[in-house]
Amino acid sequence: MADLVSGNAAIGQSGGPTAVINQSLVGVIEGLRTGLAASGQVERILGMRHGVRGLVKAGADGLIDLTGIPADRLEHIAATPSAALGSTRDKPDEAYCEKILAGCKAHDIRYFFYIGGNDSADTCRIVSEMAAAAAYELRCFHVPKTIDNDLLENDHTPGFPSAARYVALALMGDALDNASLGGIKINVVMGRNAGFLTAAASLARGQASAGAAPADRPAPHLIYLPEVPFSTDAFLADVETVYAKLGRCQIALSEGVRDATGEEIGPKLMRGPGEMDAHGNVQLSGSGALGDGLADLVKTGLTPKGGKAPRVRADTFGYIQRCWPHPSPVDSLEARAVGRYAAELAAKGDASASVILLRVSDAPDYRSACARADLSAVARRSRHMPAEFIAGANDVSAAFHAYCRPLVGELPKLERL
Amino acid sequence: MADLVSGNAAIGQSGGPTAVINQSLVGVIEGLRTGLAASGQVERILGMRHGVRGLVKAGADGLIDLTGIPADRLEHIAATPSAALGSTRDKPDEAYCEKILAGCKAHDIRYFFYIGGNDSADTCRIVSEMAAAAAYELRCFHVPKTIDNDLLENDHTPGFPSAARYVALALMGDALDNASLGGIKINVVMGRNAGFLTAAASLARGQASAGAAPADRPAPHLIYLPEVPFSTDAFLADVETVYAKLGRCQIALSEGVRDATGEEIGPKLMRGPGEMDAHGNVQLSGSGALGDGLADLVKTGLTPKGGKAPRVRADTFGYIQRCWPHPSPVDSLEARAVGRYAAELAAKGDASASVILLRVSDAPDYRSACARADLSAVARRSRHMPAEFIAGANDVSAAFHAYCRPLVGELPKLERL
Repeated sequence: MADLVSGNAAIGQSGGPTAVINQSLVGVIEGLRTGLAASGQVERILGMRHGVRGLVKAGADGLIDLTGIPADRLEHIAATPSAALGSTRDKPDEAYCEKILAGCKAHDIRYFFYIGGNDSADTCRIVSEMAAAAAYELRCFHVPKTIDNDLLENDHTPGFPSAARYVALALMGDALDNASLGGIKINVVMGRNAGFLTAAASLARGQASAGAAPADRPAPHLIYLPEVPFSTDAFLADVETVYAKLGRCQIALSEGVRDATGEEIGPKLMRGPGEMDAHGNVQLSGSGALGDGLADLVKTGLTPKGGKAPRVRADTFGYIQRCWPHPSPVDSLEARAVGRYAAELAAKGDASASVILLRVSDAPDYRSACARADLSAVARRSRHMPAEFIAGANDVSAAFHAYCRPLVGELPKLERL
Repeated sequence: MADLVSGNAAIGQSGGPTAVINQSLVGVIEGLRTGLAASGQVERILGMRHGVRGLVKAGADGLIDLTGIPADRLEHIAATPSAALGSTRDKPDEAYCEKILAGCKAHDIRYFFYIGGNDSADTCRIVSEMAAAAAYELRCFHVPKTIDNDLLENDHTPGFPSAARYVALALMGDALDNASLGGIKINVVMGRNAGFLTAAASLARGQASAGAAPADRPAPHLIYLPEVPFSTDAFLADVETVYAKLGRCQIALSEGVRDATGEEIGPKLMRGPGEMDAHGNVQLSGSGALGDGLADLVKTGLTPKGGKAPRVRADTFGYIQRCWPHPSPVDSLEARAVGRYAAELAAKGDASASVILLRVSDAPDYRSACARADLSAVARRSRHMPAEFIAGANDVSAAFHAYCRPLVGELPKLERL
């Protein structure tokens, strides 16, 4: 532990926003107000507009002074989805991090808090090392956030439970819609590399039901994760089996499903050329192309010669998954807690850390706690659905249900005739 | 008014389900239990599985006996979205209606309740006239339901307020997501011919703000209705103006937008051939094709020569709009009331009617009441957004805000920095 240093604090939000990312922002501010700001080490609390872009950008409008915001206004901001400071997709390299350090020096920033995923942890790590090399006293803290739930060291990640709640509720309603009119319904869920959010569709069943044959499970009957190699032939056979027995079939499928060679299915099924994102990947979110391609595939594959095509519909759950204004209550509390804990680590003299979220006890007495990890343990790499959460080629396990259920809050009790 | 006749009652649900269609089902059952069933005219209360298909289908599983379902179970069913009896897209012609009448005779059905849109009202009308011609005593009642809000004679239609609530909440969250990361966001909303549901996107603004220039409105900045001729050139110019000023632009657009000749835009922009529905129209719901086509259009149209394409994303709000498990409280109460009122009309000796929903007083003391209309006044034809609800080429009016706001229930108070 280093001694405490005096100066300003800066907070930023990065990557895809979540429904509770502002809880973490307010958590950091609260933690500073009762800690380093109260004891005089932190003079001003600055917000970075659109993450580190606000800091490296010339001009005064890249930073906003949060020092004096009234507590009641902070509560409203905490309850508001999406990054209140604005977010950024910038993924800083060494040269960019030099500019971040220069920005910290220019504004006498000594405490740097960055709310985001593994890229944000890496930014903290690089800047922290650069500051040490330059003998500039800077404490860097990463606050976890991602709906993908793919951060290492964490039991789960703030933002995921609220997105999982949305997906579970959507699948609950959609299962009844599908049962009302019959046919095949494909729901494409966010999460390119990690299947946690798609797996949350299983919560719509009300209870764990892995082990049953697809047609004997409550809907969703079929769940496809990016961690399990996807075969269009097996997919068609699965759908056909369920549809033949029930006259309907509800499917949850990750936007990132890929074949046995690791190649993504999405781009291969798209009707037109896809757009590349900043990382050179074909854009999957914010487009209905994968769902439409799969629907075409099912219509073609399941229509008997000269017969009538089954009713096939595809919904792609878009950005609403991460910004629905009614978050999971557990998620709201935990997102606040990780922010506050970061400020507490700073007050204890920690030089740099990633806050992690651990599970203390499981349902029915679910409890979590914050802890610290080294930035390098969380940075860059990502976590996937462990084997124990996966059941065969098209389902999740009872262990996943036990893991995920306490995170999403109360779900309505629905009843059919 | 005719005298009361004795026999059984049958209830069915038809067309696209809603979040509150089971409230109406339970309303009819409750109304019968305290009315015609209590006084002995109705012996058994039968549910038609998948609407009139259940009645015309041979075999016993097309009808379900609802007479003895406990009240507490009914409450759970009422709170469950989507048609608990199952629904149907069948649109009966004269020959089909003959079979419905035969089914009524076979099961001694003397009271026929059909929950649905204008097609369902028309089915009631035809069957009612056929029964009269055949001197078979049959009382037919239409109970209104549609998320499209397009039934004549009604102030608004049960099912619409809950879908409008979903759209408003989604746009609220999405507006913040769009503000966090910037770029252009297109949201495609259900409602092929009537723009009410798309117009509900305006509630995300928190207050009426028509009259302002697009870039000066709170998001959504642009709203496109099927009632207003849509020009892709004007659309691109609108988007460019907002994006140039704000660096972002949030759009709500009906799936049914059409050009000045009345031709739908959707099919023209689709990347591949569309699927035809039962009415010979290209399928728009359950596909992301229109949104993706518009996104392509904006990317191409707004990218400077040799420059970087703006970030453009499209979400198509699918079936979740009509089955989200948290309905508008006002909608739940009104959907129950129209069902109960239908049973009360029957108990009063009415021979056939469509229940309609009228507004008694506006906010802040919003109240509604049920009344009756002739089936022919509601059957077949449909209602559109009146001129007073429309503001120019890309917005809705303050009058629409006053009309719609009391229907959707409380919306969260969000706050940004």
